[in-house]
Amino acid sequence: MTPFAKERLAYTPKVPKLLHHLPSLQIEISRSRRLGCNEKNPAIDALFPHTSQFLPIKFIENSDPNGDTRKKIKVAVVFSGGQAPGGHNVVAGLFDALKLLNSESSLIGFLQGPEGILKNNYIEITENTLLKVRNQGGFDLLGSGRTKIETEEQFSKACEVARSEKLDGLVIIGGDDSNTNAAFLAEYFLQQGIATKIIGIPKTIDGDLKNEDIQISFGFDTASKIFSNLIGNIQRDALSAKKYTHFIKLMGRSASHIALECALKAQPNLTIIGEEVEDSKKSLQKIIQEISDLIVERSKVSKNYGVIVIPEGLLEFCDDCKALIKELNLLVDGNIATKSEDEKIHFAINALSEKAKECFSLFPKETQLQLLLERDPHGNINVSKIETEQLVIKMVESELKKRKKNGSFTGKFSPQPHFYGYEGRAATPTNFDANYCYTLGNIAALLLAVNQTGYMACVKNLHLEVEAWEIGAVPLTSMLHIEERQGKEKAVIKKKFVDLKGAPFKDFEKNRVEWSINDHYLFPEPIQFFGPSSIIDGITKTLELESI
Amino acid sequence: MTPFAKERLAYTPKVPKLLHHLPSLQIEISRSRRLGCNEKNPAIDALFPHTSQFLPIKFIENSDPNGDTRKKIKVAVVFSGGQAPGGHNVVAGLFDALKLLNSESSLIGFLQGPEGILKNNYIEITENTLLKVRNQGGFDLLGSGRTKIETEEQFSKACEVARSEKLDGLVIIGGDDSNTNAAFLAEYFLQQGIATKIIGIPKTIDGDLKNEDIQISFGFDTASKIFSNLIGNIQRDALSAKKYTHFIKLMGRSASHIALECALKAQPNLTIIGEEVEDSKKSLQKIIQEISDLIVERSKVSKNYGVIVIPEGLLEFCDDCKALIKELNLLVDGNIATKSEDEKIHFAINALSEKAKECFSLFPKETQLQLLLERDPHGNINVSKIETEQLVIKMVESELKKRKKNGSFTGKFSPQPHFYGYEGRAATPTNFDANYCYTLGNIAALLLAVNQTGYMACVKNLHLEVEAWEIGAVPLTSMLHIEERQGKEKAVIKKKFVDLKGAPFKDFEKNRVEWSINDHYLFPEPIQFFGPSSIIDGITKTLELESI
Repeated sequence: MTPFAKERLAYTPKVPKLLHHLPSLQIEISRSRRLGCNEKNPAIDALFPHTSQFLPIKFIENSDPNGDTRKKIKVAVVFSGGQAPGGHNVVAGLFDALKLLNSESSLIGFLQGPEGILKNNYIEITENTLLKVRNQGGFDLLGSGRTKIETEEQFSKACEVARSEKLDGLVIIGGDDSNTNAAFLAEYFLQQGIATKIIGIPKTIDGDLKNEDIQISFGFDTASKIFSNLIGNIQRDALSAKKYTHFIKLMGRSASHIALECALKAQPNLTIIGEEVEDSKKSLQKIIQEISDLIVERSKVSKNYGVIVIPEGLLEFCDDCKALIKELNLLVDGNIATKSEDEKIHFAINALSEKAKECFSLFPKETQLQLLLERDPHGNINVSKIETEQLVIKMVESELKKRKKNGSFTGKFSPQPHFYGYEGRAATPTNFDANYCYTLGNIAALLLAVNQTGYMACVKNLHLEVEAWEIGAVPLTSMLHIEERQGKEKAVIKKKFVDLKGAPFKDFEKNRVEWSINDHYLFPEPIQFFGPSSIIDGITKTLELESI
Repeated sequence: MTPFAKERLAYTPKVPKLLHHLPSLQIEISRSRRLGCNEKNPAIDALFPHTSQFLPIKFIENSDPNGDTRKKIKVAVVFSGGQAPGGHNVVAGLFDALKLLNSESSLIGFLQGPEGILKNNYIEITENTLLKVRNQGGFDLLGSGRTKIETEEQFSKACEVARSEKLDGLVIIGGDDSNTNAAFLAEYFLQQGIATKIIGIPKTIDGDLKNEDIQISFGFDTASKIFSNLIGNIQRDALSAKKYTHFIKLMGRSASHIALECALKAQPNLTIIGEEVEDSKKSLQKIIQEISDLIVERSKVSKNYGVIVIPEGLLEFCDDCKALIKELNLLVDGNIATKSEDEKIHFAINALSEKAKECFSLFPKETQLQLLLERDPHGNINVSKIETEQLVIKMVESELKKRKKNGSFTGKFSPQPHFYGYEGRAATPTNFDANYCYTLGNIAALLLAVNQTGYMACVKNLHLEVEAWEIGAVPLTSMLHIEERQGKEKAVIKKKFVDLKGAPFKDFEKNRVEWSINDHYLFPEPIQFFGPSSIIDGITKTLELESI
């Protein structure tokens, strides 16, 4: 262990005021649903007869502090999906609160994600188990996985395990999909008379699990700060060397919250926001034109360098690419593997519509082949395998070559690709995420101690100091809506995309022209755990702007 | 400016004890050359008649503190070559000391590297200029460039500028090549009767400007800590997800100091050290075999994940690649651009020797074409354009496919490439680099104030606390030796490669088998500027181990 890891172990997470009196807390159920929750949704009501009427929960201090001793309970916890910084602190906060409420309560952790539930593969979590993970990054205490508990068979397997292990509660730490599953599992357990209560925890660095009740998912703070710092470092290098155009792809396939947050933090020359691309029905070709325009403009004022940020999911937002991908998904040729490269491309071009063909023809050969060959288990094109930053560079390169020829570009173009993602998923959580996660763990324990199920732990006023944070819980069903997924109507937690009318995007929109040519680079710090920066820069720009 | 940037501005660099009495310091010239300096080298003596006899310098406190007032001088400073964290602090340390020695002394900064000298393109440096850059990363105050002052014409242009600007001193902040040029310039100026004194400052994140007198070049500390932190983050992610094998390429083409330091700090499963590859005459094919062996071994204990670190310059260390590159450099075909891809490859295969052909044939087509087409301005193959991490992945992939077929590999292999370099060159310097650079700047001012030329500022005992650092200067000529470069004998500063008998490598060698299968990942912190970590982890492992 590094000395630093030991320092972090010694850190005591801060919790909101109410949690200082954890053993004496009681729940108070709201009289009405909050505005913004789906007040009436017959489809959800029909799917969730036991849980759709649940109301939000607040905690209040019991006037008689020596009142209830909580009953002894046995709880399980599981990480679901991609890593996010702070996961271990959810487990620590859960464990500590369970023990505080009744020292005989116990906690187990299912291993390697929901798969661990189905296989009943777990470890006992003790004070000792936690000795090395408090305030540390990663999900390595338990591991994680992407198995989903969705099918009837999986549900009944989960019942079996919950019953045989005599679980009073199960805490699912996951993103929108995992919490959707949590909502179904809570309903199913009630229906089957299983005593195990289900509590969800909002996790994802992507920041797209967010709504009226959930200000931010955990991990977003740490990950976006790591990426912002790296972007700042690259910007300082660009400004010093004055010879490279850096293309930085940021993780986040379905929403561009991370890209937007990093843009606000570091102020690069250009940041592409997927939601805006989609909203304005922009084509990839148009984006390539815009990037090339910027490079030409900058070169006119002798700036043959720059920093451009693109979201991981760019292609899936572009009008032309979306259409192309849709057509390619339907294009099946059983013999494609036996064909030569040129035959493969020829086959695709012949089969595609005019519009799709035009888009396809713009891609370099390598990408064309990737689009034809890489399929996910559902037979769909595996867009995530395409190195978008490399693709964009190649397309800009070829556009600038044309402009060189016709004399409209006389500058230099030396591109450098970067991709930041894995660096931010398992890092040591910021003080914010460490505190937030520990608090979420505490809330989960409280909810289970008072027999609640089908709720997501929730903390409000996160833009204020920790003392002033408000703790509560919101019914998982209140976040559900009906959505078409792979051709079927499904009840799912609504993903939160970047709101083009929201304060963070508006702020970005107001400033971006100024940032594009006149460099206004900022150089955000590496995450600080001590000293003034660990406090001053406590929250993300997104949270700050959304709370004004 | 971010609040953090302001905090850093407010930081007062620590300096060694003697520098608290800067105005009263005098130099003391050693009676003899230090052991290890090239005691007698007739070739160097012949090339440097005016400077080859210089002896090392120490500073001592003047018994009469009210003695000398230093004369007013005009000094210039220039950044040369790639960025390294701390450059701005050299300038600040230089400026502050000049002003302290005589408030009428002045400092100018040549812009965009040595090119700025030749063009006499500079800015005046004032307290105001420095207001935004103290303790900040980057070289953006002045910019940098890779122009070298080497030709007779460039030398005489430099004379002209030095004379017209009435420069008393010129401080060159650069790596081995830039300081080699500094040595020649000092000699030339003396020979021409130019009054401008030359002082060199040891800069490079690569860590290969290092010798008996220079424990470490500035920037290595910050850059290696940034990369180690990122590697740790990736390791934590690998350990949690248990499904990716990460290939991390680290900047540093000619020496693997950074890779070695990061290996010692983060303990990944495998780290390739270029110097060892070269020493053992290993082929790239052999390395691919070894990596594949490791992946197979790990998969046998259900570890289908891992972290592998490779140095940027890997290909240039491999026996087979070196030979191939040599042959390809001589292989010129004026018509190659007009040929089809297959014709190009065919042409090369026909022209290469058996051994070179074998190596060439192992490469994927894309790399083969890159090797044939990308040439640097000297007509040599531009090896740095090849994405080594991608190449290694493709070769390992194809090796593992073979092993899958013959049944010797039954695991999974999901590779993820990363490249860290630009993130570390211009970052906010660690407290160590901030202090070290400021001290170097102070020393340069002192040396110029007492009319010294042809020296490199030097700080010893860097592994101790700042108070105990020893300040001095070492003749640039004492670092020179004769070396063949591009077929010609040249006097150059000897690059320091990783010493396979040195303590850092020995420590790595002792532990690496243990790290390879049984994960002993460490998770080094993001650079901390406050709190215990900013002190505890004060120095690099390399410095620590070399100082025992």
